[in-house]
Amino acid sequence: MSKWMQEWSTETVAPHDLKLAERPVPEAGEHDIIVRTLAVSLNYRDKLVLETGMGLDLAFPFVPASDMSGVVEAVGKSVTRFRPGDRVISTFAPGWLDGLRPGTGRTPAYETLGGAHPGVLSEYVVLPEGWFVAAPKSLDAAEASTLPCAGLTAWFALVEKGHLRAGDRVVVQGTGGVALFGLQIAKATGAEVIVTSSSREKLDRAFALGADHGINRLEEDWVERVYALTGDRGADHILEIAGGAGLGQSLKAVAPDGRISVIGVLEGFEVSGPVGPLLLKSPVVQGISVGHRRALEDLVGAVDRLGLKPVIDMRYKFTEVPEALAHLDRGPFGKVVIEF
Amino acid sequence: MSKWMQEWSTETVAPHDLKLAERPVPEAGEHDIIVRTLAVSLNYRDKLVLETGMGLDLAFPFVPASDMSGVVEAVGKSVTRFRPGDRVISTFAPGWLDGLRPGTGRTPAYETLGGAHPGVLSEYVVLPEGWFVAAPKSLDAAEASTLPCAGLTAWFALVEKGHLRAGDRVVVQGTGGVALFGLQIAKATGAEVIVTSSSREKLDRAFALGADHGINRLEEDWVERVYALTGDRGADHILEIAGGAGLGQSLKAVAPDGRISVIGVLEGFEVSGPVGPLLLKSPVVQGISVGHRRALEDLVGAVDRLGLKPVIDMRYKFTEVPEALAHLDRGPFGKVVIEF
Amino acid sequence: MSKWMQEWSTETVAPHDLKLAERPVPEAGEHDIIVRTLAVSLNYRDKLVLETGMGLDLAFPFVPASDMSGVVEAVGKSVTRFRPGDRVISTFAPGWLDGLRPGTGRTPAYETLGGAHPGVLSEYVVLPEGWFVAAPKSLDAAEASTLPCAGLTAWFALVEKGHLRAGDRVVVQGTGGVALFGLQIAKATGAEVIVTSSSREKLDRAFALGADHGINRLEEDWVERVYALTGDRGADHILEIAGGAGLGQSLKAVAPDGRISVIGVLEGFEVSGPVGPLLLKSPVVQGISVGHRRALEDLVGAVDRLGLKPVIDMRYKFTEVPEALAHLDRGPFGKVVIEF
Amino acid sequence: MSKWMQEWSTETVAPHDLKLAERPVPEAGEHDIIVRTLAVSLNYRDKLVLETGMGLDLAFPFVPASDMSGVVEAVGKSVTRFRPGDRVISTFAPGWLDGLRPGTGRTPAYETLGGAHPGVLSEYVVLPEGWFVAAPKSLDAAEASTLPCAGLTAWFALVEKGHLRAGDRVVVQGTGGVALFGLQIAKATGAEVIVTSSSREKLDRAFALGADHGINRLEEDWVERVYALTGDRGADHILEIAGGAGLGQSLKAVAPDGRISVIGVLEGFEVSGPVGPLLLKSPVVQGISVGHRRALEDLVGAVDRLGLKPVIDMRYKFTEVPEALAHLDRGPFGKVVIEF
Repeated sequence: MSKWMQEWSTETVAPHDLKLAERPVPEAGEHDIIVRTLAVSLNYRDKLVLETGMGLDLAFPFVPASDMSGVVEAVGKSVTRFRPGDRVISTFAPGWLDGLRPGTGRTPAYETLGGAHPGVLSEYVVLPEGWFVAAPKSLDAAEASTLPCAGLTAWFALVEKGHLRAGDRVVVQGTGGVALFGLQIAKATGAEVIVTSSSREKLDRAFALGADHGINRLEEDWVERVYALTGDRGADHILEIAGGAGLGQSLKAVAPDGRISVIGVLEGFEVSGPVGPLLLKSPVVQGISVGHRRALEDLVGAVDRLGLKPVIDMRYKFTEVPEALAHLDRGPFGKVVIEF
Repeated sequence: MSKWMQEWSTETVAPHDLKLAERPVPEAGEHDIIVRTLAVSLNYRDKLVLETGMGLDLAFPFVPASDMSGVVEAVGKSVTRFRPGDRVISTFAPGWLDGLRPGTGRTPAYETLGGAHPGVLSEYVVLPEGWFVAAPKSLDAAEASTLPCAGLTAWFALVEKGHLRAGDRVVVQGTGGVALFGLQIAKATGAEVIVTSSSREKLDRAFALGADHGINRLEEDWVERVYALTGDRGADHILEIAGGAGLGQSLKAVAPDGRISVIGVLEGFEVSGPVGPLLLKSPVVQGISVGHRRALEDLVGAVDRLGLKPVIDMRYKFTEVPEALAHLDRGPFGKVVIEF
Repeated sequence: MSKWMQEWSTETVAPHDLKLAERPVPEAGEHDIIVRTLAVSLNYRDKLVLETGMGLDLAFPFVPASDMSGVVEAVGKSVTRFRPGDRVISTFAPGWLDGLRPGTGRTPAYETLGGAHPGVLSEYVVLPEGWFVAAPKSLDAAEASTLPCAGLTAWFALVEKGHLRAGDRVVVQGTGGVALFGLQIAKATGAEVIVTSSSREKLDRAFALGADHGINRLEEDWVERVYALTGDRGADHILEIAGGAGLGQSLKAVAPDGRISVIGVLEGFEVSGPVGPLLLKSPVVQGISVGHRRALEDLVGAVDRLGLKPVIDMRYKFTEVPEALAHLDRGPFGKVVIEF
Repeated sequence: MSKWMQEWSTETVAPHDLKLAERPVPEAGEHDIIVRTLAVSLNYRDKLVLETGMGLDLAFPFVPASDMSGVVEAVGKSVTRFRPGDRVISTFAPGWLDGLRPGTGRTPAYETLGGAHPGVLSEYVVLPEGWFVAAPKSLDAAEASTLPCAGLTAWFALVEKGHLRAGDRVVVQGTGGVALFGLQIAKATGAEVIVTSSSREKLDRAFALGADHGINRLEEDWVERVYALTGDRGADHILEIAGGAGLGQSLKAVAPDGRISVIGVLEGFEVSGPVGPLLLKSPVVQGISVGHRRALEDLVGAVDRLGLKPVIDMRYKFTEVPEALAHLDRGPFGKVVIEF
C-alpha cells in the first residue's frame, strides 16, 4: 500500500485556494478501513461549502466532497463488515444508521463527509467501517459514487418516505442529479413521470431515459399541464427541487392527499405558498436531506436488481477538479464525477 | 312533528342581513332523516362565509353553520342507520366517509354544510342519513355539537394523521376551539402539552384543563422556551393555528422527524418559512381541514370512553345568534354554542 | 333495451342445479344503473358457494359470480357517476368504499356479489351506481372482468397494504389468478419475483410473464431456495396462497420485518406455524380478502398507465358455464372468463 | 473502584449449577463503560436459558439475565454518551439501534445480553457505551431495571408498532410483567383496557392499576365477553401472550382491521388459528420480540413524563437469586427484581 497520497484541500473558505498536495496516508484505527478511491461524485453543495463554508465548523486543511467509491486496501483489527478487496461507497451522514435522524430541534444534525467530517477528494480515505456500504455489483466506480447523496436523496423521498406506488403520477423538477435519479427510480416503481425543465434539449434527453411527459417551463404553465395530463387530479408526488416560491406552484399541482418532497440547497431562501390548497388538499410537505445507511443499502440492492444506471453528464480526471466544479454551475444533466 | 320551523338565513353575502324567519319543514326523501336541532356550534368560518362568501357558490336564502346536534324525529323509508329518538351530530364534509379525501388537484373538495350545502341554524334539519353520526352518550347537546368541526380537526391532526404517542411533546397554539380540543386530546393520549397564548388569564384556564406548560407569547420567545422545556429536542407535534409566517417559528421549534399540522382559516395569507430546518429536520408539514366520517365516529367513541368534555366559552339562545357571532371576534376560550 | 334476459341460477345449493333461464330485466331504482354484461370472470369461491353455500344466507333463485364487466345501458334518475355507454366493472364487496372495512369482530362483513348480494352471471345487471367502477381503457371486456376480485386482491396485498418497493423480493405461491396478478403487479413495481409451482410447464409460462425465478416445489425445498436466491435474507413479501400449514414455511422464508399476506379460500383449514420466526423476525402476517372500491380505482389507473394485461387461461361462451366451472378444478393458469 | 466483584454464573446448562463467585472486574475498552449494578430484573426467558440453553451458543462460565440498572463508575477514553455518576439501564438486544431489526431470514438475530452476549447478574458490568440508555429520573433502580425487556416489549407492541390511539379497546392477556406494562401503557395512551386472567385476586389487583374490565378466563368465555364489552366490534389490539392455539381465540376477538401482537417465550409451541377471521377481518398479526434502543429511549421519556411506575411483585437480595428464579414459576404479578 502506498504511504503517500495526493489530496485536494484548501486552507480557507475560498474555492480558488483548492490545491492538490501530497500527504501521508493516515493510520487506520481499530475500527477503520483504508479505502483506495476510484471515483468521487460532486454535488452542488460541495461548491457551496468551498465558497461560503455554509456556516459549518470546518477543520483546515479542508478536503471537500462527500461521495466516493473505492476498494478496501486494509482493515483495522476489529473490523468485521469488510475485507480487503471489497468495493465500497461512502455514506453522506455517517451517524444516521436507520430510523429517526440524529440531532435536536435547536441544532439539527449536519455531520456529513466534506463538511463537519473530512471529505473524500483524496487518493485514500481512512474512516470507520460503519461509514461505508458495499458498492453495487452492477455499476462501475464512477456510477457507484453517485449513490450516497444524489441517489439516496431521490430514493429516500420517493420510496423510503414517499411509499411510491405503481401507477402514481410523479413530477420531477429539472434534470440535475437528484432529479434524474428521481425519474429513474419512479419509472422503475411503475410510476408515470412528468419532467419539467427550461430546456427542450434536456427534455429530449429525459424522454430517452423513460420520462412519460416533459414540460418546458419557459413555454407553458406547468401546473395547468399537470392538470391536463392527470385529468385534473394533480400529481401524487412532486420532487420540489426549485425551492422558494416554487412550493406555491407545487401546492397547486399536487393531488389531494398527495406528497411534496422539498429537496434543495440549504442557503438563501424561504419556502412559501398559499394556505388554501395546503388545507383543502392536505398534502404532506416534507423536507428531505439525503437519508440513512439502511436506505442506502436498500438502494444498492434495488440498483443491482433493477439494472438502474446513474446518469453521468461528464467524467473528469483527478487533476481536473477545478473544471469539474465549474461544470456544476452550468446545470449538469445528471452527475459530474471525478475518476481516479 | 311541527310543520313549521324557525330558521336563520340571509339573502345576500352580508352578515347584517341574517334574519330569523319561519319556513315549512322540508319533506324527507327516501334516505333522509328529520332531525330536531338541539344545539349549533359556531366556527369562525361561519362568520367568514357570511361576510365574504369565501368564494363559495351559495344558494340563497342561505342558512349558515355546519355543526349541530339533535334528535331524530322521523326517517325516510330506506333509512337503516338511525331511528326516531336517536341523538345525532352532523358531519362537516358529508361526502368524505373514510380514507382519501374527495376532490381534485385543480378543484379541491369543499362541500360542507353551511357552505356548498345548506346550513343548520334551523329548528329542523332534513338531510341524508349518511350525513350524520350517533352523538356521544356522555355529552349534553351543546357539547356534542362542537365535535363535527373543531373536535374532529384536532383529532384528525393529532390522532388520525399524527399518530400521537404517549410521552410526545405537543405545542398547541392559542386557546380557541380547535386548540383546546388539541390540548384535551393530547393529554388524554399521554402527551405533554405546551400551550401558547398572548393572555395570562387564558393560560391559567389552560392549566386548569391539564396543560403541562404555558407560554405567554407577549412575554417570551416561545421557540426558545420549547427548546428549554424539551432539553433542546423540540416539539414532536405542533398544532400550527396562527398561519402565515408563524410556520417559520414552528419549523424552528419542531423536533427532528416531528410534525406540524397547519390548521386555520382559508383566507388571506400564505405560509412561509426557512428551508434550512425543513430540510435538516425533515418534519412532516401537513394541512388539516377537518376529517372524514369514520374518524368522527372514532372521536365520538373516544369521548365517551375518556370522559372528555368539550370547553364551551358561552352558550347563547337561538334568538341570540348575532350576539354569538360577535363573540367569535373576541377570541373565545373554546367554543361558542347556540342552544335551541 | 331488451326486456328479457338470459341468466344462470340455481334453486338449491347444488352445482348441478345451475340452469340458464329467461327472466325479465329488473327495473332500475333512482340510484341504479342497468349494465349489459360483456364478460364474467369466475373465481374458485364461486364454485364453493354453489357446492356448499359457504354458510351464506343466499336468496333463491341464486345467481352466482361476482366479477363482471359491461356497458351501461340506462341509468336511474339520480345517477351522477355514469352515463349510458360507459364501460364499467363491478365491485366485489360493494359496501366498502375506502379506509377501514365494514363489519364487526363478531360478524365480519362478507357482503359480496354472488353471495349475500345477487350474482352477475346474467345478460343484464341492475345495481346501485356506487357498486361499479369505470373499466380500464386498455383492456378488453374479458380482461377487465378479472380485476374486481383476483386483481384487486393481489393489488391490495402488495400495494395498498404491503407498500411494495422497487427492489423488494416477492414470493408468489402458485400460478392461479391472484398469483399471476401478484407476479405482474410486483414486476411492475420493480420487485424481484420468485414463483413457486408444482409444474415445470407453468413455471415456464411464469418466466414468460416476467418471473425472475421459478421454484418447482416437487423438486426442491422452496424455503432453502429462497434463502439461496436472497443471500439468506429471505423474502420481503410472500403471497401465501396455499394456506394451512404452509404458513409455517412462509414464516421460515420471510425476511426480518417482512410481510406475509395470507390469501385463500375460506373453508376447511387453519393456519399454523412455529412461533420462533414469528417472534424473532417480527413479520407482519395479514389476511387479505379483496379490497375497497378506491383501491380498485387505483388498480384500474395503474393497469392503464402500466399496460398490464391480465392472464386469461381460457375464454368460454355464456352457454358454457358448466365447462368453465369444471376448468376451475383443474388449476387454471390465471383466470377463466365467460364472454357474452 | 472495586477490583473484585461477586457474580452469579454457571458452567453448564443446568439451573442448579448457578453459583455466586468472585471474579475480577474486567478492564474497560476504549468505548466501554463500567457500570456498578444496582438492580437486575428477571424474565422467564432467563430461566429457560439456564434450564435448556434455548439452542444458544453460550460461553461458559455463563452469567444469566439481561435487564439491569446501575450507575456509571468509569468510562473508556473514547466514550461520549455517558459520564461517571450517570444512571443507566441496559439494552436487551444491543445491536439493534433503530429501524429494521438485524439478522437474516435464515438466521434471525437473537444477540441478547444473558444469551449470546454475557449476562448482568454481577456487581459490575463492563460493556460498550452504546449498549446502555440513560435511566428514567422518576424510577428507583429496581423499577428502572424492568424496562429493557418487559417494558420495551409492551411499548414496542402497543406504541411503536401498534400506533395505539386514545379510545382504542385493548385486551391484555394475563398479569405478568409484559402484560402489566401493557395495561399501564395502554391506559396512559387513553385506551380502554380489558385484562384476562384465571385469578380473581389478580384481576382485582389489575383493577387497582386502572384496568377498565377484567375477565376471569375460568368463569367465562373471554371472546364473548369482549364482544359484549365492545358492542360486538371486538378489540382493536390484543396482546396475545398465551401463544399456541390461543391465537385462534384472539383472531375471533379482534376487531376488523385490528392488531394482534404475539408475545411469548420461544420454545415449545406453534401458533394456529382459523383462516376465516384472518381473511375476513384482515387483522395484522405480528410477533414482537422486545425492540430497539431508540424505542427504549422513547419509553424512558414517556415513563418520566407520565409518572408510570412499573409493578414489582417481589424484590429479592443479590444472594437470593435461586429464590427469585423459583418465583418466576409461580406466575408473578408483574416483575421479580434482584436488588444489589
